[in-house]
Amino acid sequence: MKVSRRSHVPPFAVMQVLAAANERRAAGNDVLNLCAGEPSTGASDVVRERAAELLRHADLGYTEAMGVPALRAEIAGHYRRWYDVDVDPARVAVTTGSSGGFLLAFLAAFDVGDRVALARPGYPAYKNILAALGCEVVELDCGPETRYQPTVSQLMEAYYGGGLDGLVVASPANPTGTMITPAELAAVAGWCEEHDVRLISDEIYHGIAYSDDVQQASAAMYTDAGAVVVNSFSKYWAMTGWRLGWLVLPDELVGPVDALAGNVALSPPALAQHAGIAAFSPAGYAAAAENVGRYAASRAALLDRVDELGWRPVAPADGAFYLYGNVSAYLDAVGGDSVAYCARLLAEADVAITPGADFDAVAGGEWVRLSFAASPDVVARAVDRIVAWQRTL
Amino acid sequence: MKVSRRSHVPPFAVMQVLAAANERRAAGNDVLNLCAGEPSTGASDVVRERAAELLRHADLGYTEAMGVPALRAEIAGHYRRWYDVDVDPARVAVTTGSSGGFLLAFLAAFDVGDRVALARPGYPAYKNILAALGCEVVELDCGPETRYQPTVSQLMEAYYGGGLDGLVVASPANPTGTMITPAELAAVAGWCEEHDVRLISDEIYHGIAYSDDVQQASAAMYTDAGAVVVNSFSKYWAMTGWRLGWLVLPDELVGPVDALAGNVALSPPALAQHAGIAAFSPAGYAAAAENVGRYAASRAALLDRVDELGWRPVAPADGAFYLYGNVSAYLDAVGGDSVAYCARLLAEADVAITPGADFDAVAGGEWVRLSFAASPDVVARAVDRIVAWQRTL
Repeated sequence: MKVSRRSHVPPFAVMQVLAAANERRAAGNDVLNLCAGEPSTGASDVVRERAAELLRHADLGYTEAMGVPALRAEIAGHYRRWYDVDVDPARVAVTTGSSGGFLLAFLAAFDVGDRVALARPGYPAYKNILAALGCEVVELDCGPETRYQPTVSQLMEAYYGGGLDGLVVASPANPTGTMITPAELAAVAGWCEEHDVRLISDEIYHGIAYSDDVQQASAAMYTDAGAVVVNSFSKYWAMTGWRLGWLVLPDELVGPVDALAGNVALSPPALAQHAGIAAFSPAGYAAAAENVGRYAASRAALLDRVDELGWRPVAPADGAFYLYGNVSAYLDAVGGDSVAYCARLLAEADVAITPGADFDAVAGGEWVRLSFAASPDVVARAVDRIVAWQRTL
Repeated sequence: MKVSRRSHVPPFAVMQVLAAANERRAAGNDVLNLCAGEPSTGASDVVRERAAELLRHADLGYTEAMGVPALRAEIAGHYRRWYDVDVDPARVAVTTGSSGGFLLAFLAAFDVGDRVALARPGYPAYKNILAALGCEVVELDCGPETRYQPTVSQLMEAYYGGGLDGLVVASPANPTGTMITPAELAAVAGWCEEHDVRLISDEIYHGIAYSDDVQQASAAMYTDAGAVVVNSFSKYWAMTGWRLGWLVLPDELVGPVDALAGNVALSPPALAQHAGIAAFSPAGYAAAAENVGRYAASRAALLDRVDELGWRPVAPADGAFYLYGNVSAYLDAVGGDSVAYCARLLAEADVAITPGADFDAVAGGEWVRLSFAASPDVVARAVDRIVAWQRTL
């Protein structure tokens, strides 16, 4: 029987790497997995303890579609605390992870046939969700000259080239880790407002930032200009499997997101919502900051060894926990693109990293993404192995 | 700035009832709320205890997009146990509630512009999700002569009238509680296969059934004919806020749903998945059966008093926990439709029930839905109040 055209989502190249890694691990090999886009720690003790307590007495039924008021208030408070921005809790929608947030934001903002721009390289699910919802994706070719972030001149070109209804910006970005400067974010948000283009700002890696060059700015200050913020408890608070995220919305999208959420999701997970409140406690922030300290140590050690790795160029790892590097120096020896590089690295040195093809269908064949969210020890051992293996090529 | 056309979801009439009920409760009134489509108990102790244990040691990160293998195997086992049907665990997709399941099933099966039929009256989110995804909804006018379930002759009419790509069947249905007979389900599934129409079978109220007339049959036995089953832990296992459901898929949709899920949802909630395994233990089933026993007692008491209520006709409450009744005898006195009836019932007798308009835009003005998932005592007191209030009209 018929399968929809929109379900023909391109498979992720990393899935083959992960399958092979699991096989090798099952065969007894000591595989170092640096593919994962998630912290190796889980939720903090304060969140777990709150959850355990709730399991004893709370009914854990459906909540409001937009999330429980106490959590929405805490999220609003977070914007005051971190960004000195006033956010009305009524503009906060709690979502089922940032995935649920993207789905609702895209549905509320874009119709079938709308054109939405995003950076290449970039997180593939944006493209795939948009395509599933019938939107047309406009890829902006972003390189080192703009920290792999889209610019106003690219937006102008897309706008006059075929029309533009939306833009997704991610900072810190996946896979590059690069951040958009506050000035450039302001320019992009202003341009979007003037041209009636909906800005969707993915800020799920906020709080995981290392750069002295680029300050972290939130599009929450541009919601009056129509911007939508997507954020999550998954990365900074290491709560990936809890499936908890949020949106900060412009006024005109509050009602639509509420109505859509009530139909598409009913409500975000109740236990995660109630326990998630504890993420904003001093102990919750402290546990997250401790994780970030670990990533920072891993990052510093990695950057010290970039010459040794010979991955040139690497994207500036301003934030998140990824190093995106160009492995073209090794591709002749490998006899293929970065998919082949990753396959042989795993087969010959038991290190799993992600081929760039998943993030960039044009140039990704020369790039790889290494996640340093694993423990510093694992990251260091992996680099040792990669360097040694590359010498054998 | 532009809001999408597809986000113009009609608001639920029950929201006004709930808002007014909350106000009255906050003002100190003893409001009896029979609106809720959820059990008043929460998850069983065995599920809660398993969850509490996991909180102590499990990392609770992302799981496989299709769910953890152990839970998929338990779900497959459930089909052997309840229906004597062999289901390959590879065909089971764990989802974020049945809402997440509908989203994935609709995306995988239907493209923009596809026509999907469903019964009126029916659960409004089917319509609203389908419309958000760009599908065209074909409402089938279903009445008491077919237990409010669609028939092959209606399908023929829709098919030859404008084409048909899909059909959603719900049994037991919301709001009517009616069930489709095994013979009719077989006929519908066979017709769908012959005509290349994708059957989506909503079975979230399975296990909550009271009828001696109608046996419970699962479309899981028709997946080779292309049928998709949607189910959930929310109703039978009373785990609404845990956001856990599943699909049983035909072979050709397994890959598409896996790929879509990896992009649209990443994974269902991890804690719910691991703890949900305990729902299939003897203690898990026993706790659920105990809840069903309570609904059965409430239902029997309610049906005994239908004459007194004067709601005629009422849909045969074969399953679920709803009584769908026609209140047209009171509408002249109320001076409006069932929305006015519900508003006055709440204002004058502090009983909240749901106007039929939410389930049926054509005839719903004469109908109301009363949920008897609340405790039998609450249900009995509500009926006392309704009967007394109706006498005052």
